[in-house]
Amino acid sequence: MNEVELIARLLPSLARGAGVLTGPGDDCAVLDVGIPGKRLLFKTDAVVEGIHFEKGTAGERVGHKALARCLSDVAAMAGTPTHAVVTLALPERFDPEYVDAIYSGLNRLANRYDVGIVGGETTANPERLLISVALIGTVAPERLVLRSGAASGDALFVTGELGGSMEGKHLDFEPRLREAQWLAHHAPIRAMIDLSDGLASDLRHLLGQSGCGAELLTSAVPLSPAARRNTARESARKPPLLAALTDGEDFELLFAVPARDAVRVLDGWKKVFPEVRLSCIGKVTAQPGIFLRDKDGTRPFTAHGYVHFSKPG
Amino acid sequence: MNEVELIARLLPSLARGAGVLTGPGDDCAVLDVGIPGKRLLFKTDAVVEGIHFEKGTAGERVGHKALARCLSDVAAMAGTPTHAVVTLALPERFDPEYVDAIYSGLNRLANRYDVGIVGGETTANPERLLISVALIGTVAPERLVLRSGAASGDALFVTGELGGSMEGKHLDFEPRLREAQWLAHHAPIRAMIDLSDGLASDLRHLLGQSGCGAELLTSAVPLSPAARRNTARESARKPPLLAALTDGEDFELLFAVPARDAVRVLDGWKKVFPEVRLSCIGKVTAQPGIFLRDKDGTRPFTAHGYVHFSKPG
Repeated sequence: MNEVELIARLLPSLARGAGVLTGPGDDCAVLDVGIPGKRLLFKTDAVVEGIHFEKGTAGERVGHKALARCLSDVAAMAGTPTHAVVTLALPERFDPEYVDAIYSGLNRLANRYDVGIVGGETTANPERLLISVALIGTVAPERLVLRSGAASGDALFVTGELGGSMEGKHLDFEPRLREAQWLAHHAPIRAMIDLSDGLASDLRHLLGQSGCGAELLTSAVPLSPAARRNTARESARKPPLLAALTDGEDFELLFAVPARDAVRVLDGWKKVFPEVRLSCIGKVTAQPGIFLRDKDGTRPFTAHGYVHFSKPG
Repeated sequence: MNEVELIARLLPSLARGAGVLTGPGDDCAVLDVGIPGKRLLFKTDAVVEGIHFEKGTAGERVGHKALARCLSDVAAMAGTPTHAVVTLALPERFDPEYVDAIYSGLNRLANRYDVGIVGGETTANPERLLISVALIGTVAPERLVLRSGAASGDALFVTGELGGSMEGKHLDFEPRLREAQWLAHHAPIRAMIDLSDGLASDLRHLLGQSGCGAELLTSAVPLSPAARRNTARESARKPPLLAALTDGEDFELLFAVPARDAVRVLDGWKKVFPEVRLSCIGKVTAQPGIFLRDKDGTRPFTAHGYVHFSKPG
């Protein structure tokens, strides 16, 4: 049983509570806790040694990644993160300086976005380091973007460049908080998700919630230098396009806007974020499924991005 | 380096953020996120197989404990829990029915207190199960109780009976949410904490934040049947009083009220919670430290409750 199957099995019986506008199944939970003109966002995410980072990775990068993953989920709702709590599960005989380095990475990123680290705890996890971060944030209801609003004909955009994140970007990426907030103010975004499982998988999540399909123009999918380099490596068997479609942990934003607004969004973006690529990679369709279009025609794409529970390295 | 030393080392450099009324160092963080007439409480806590529960423990009890620990912290602030997110880190070849049982324990307890489980994730932790819960709740500012308000002369109370929790109560305890809320409405509580590390240790935390000491009447400390039974066991070397003072995971409430209100609080309590013992165990003193008083006189008590990072069993 993989992660997706397990979660599908657990969801129906979860305790519901009050004031839950969006429960499990989007990037964050969206709650009405009585803040006038605001929703509360709530998210948790963990990184585990040997699964999400290799043993021996610099502590700063591990701490950065642990928090950045949660921030990326708040970005995907066009929200503003405010406070985090951190659980550090430490192996036996941990090095206090390594723990300092982890917190240095956490604190630096938290300070950059005015996020307070307001609590947490340390516990033992004898065989490997695990860091669990929980994050709250806020968003105005009129800015909030879910995964579920895409409609047939919408243009699909993706930020940055995709694929090959495991070569290093997965540890150092900057969550797209500023970009998402600009988008929420300047573009009529209908649906958004952050790319953690891979473009194809996350696009499927967005389309599934929106009840649509998509056609991607293969030449428009932005390939990262790392995805291109992979082709030269003996160990890598993925062509760059497949890497961009299926590699996980890009932590870029994928979103849909009405087609009539596509050019205006691209033009505005280029002025504000000249150093971050924004690509229109295709369109939302009424027909379910993902289709790839290139000079030879259109074909269905059935491979998924990776599913978690990968064997630890 | 133990948990206490590690946390002391990390605290000064933590990212601060805005709206933080009480940061790390109390049972929950207390935040002003703009809810009129309310504060937000934020807490995280984890349980690890072999540390907080034995391998083979029924899943329902593990799930119950994972959430109940956080609820107990919200109780200690006299708050009302509202929403939780759960991270389940699963060993290889996990049994889906065991995971169902964990969630059954989580959901049953969450439903009892109208707490919504609004998100979370599963990840791998190959050698052992780990469950991390993050919880938010609310409290009216005039009801909020911190650890820091105790004053010399206050009466010290403790709920329930102490010691020997590892014989079973640590898996099945009921967080004292209803009791704490009644207290916040009917007693002028000056300081409160939940007992997780052991009476002596947690009392030290409360006194440290309040800048006081305490004198305990040894005959008034409520000994649990499990603490009493321990004396009959070859393996247990703690007399019952020492067990009540230093065993962890009682998850009872310890609080201070002005001495003049002590009898009124006790009388009111007995009518509302006839089945839960409430004991006045001593008084707050200006002199720092913990002193034990019995028929032979007064002596300082220097042993601490246990410090986490115990070797897994």
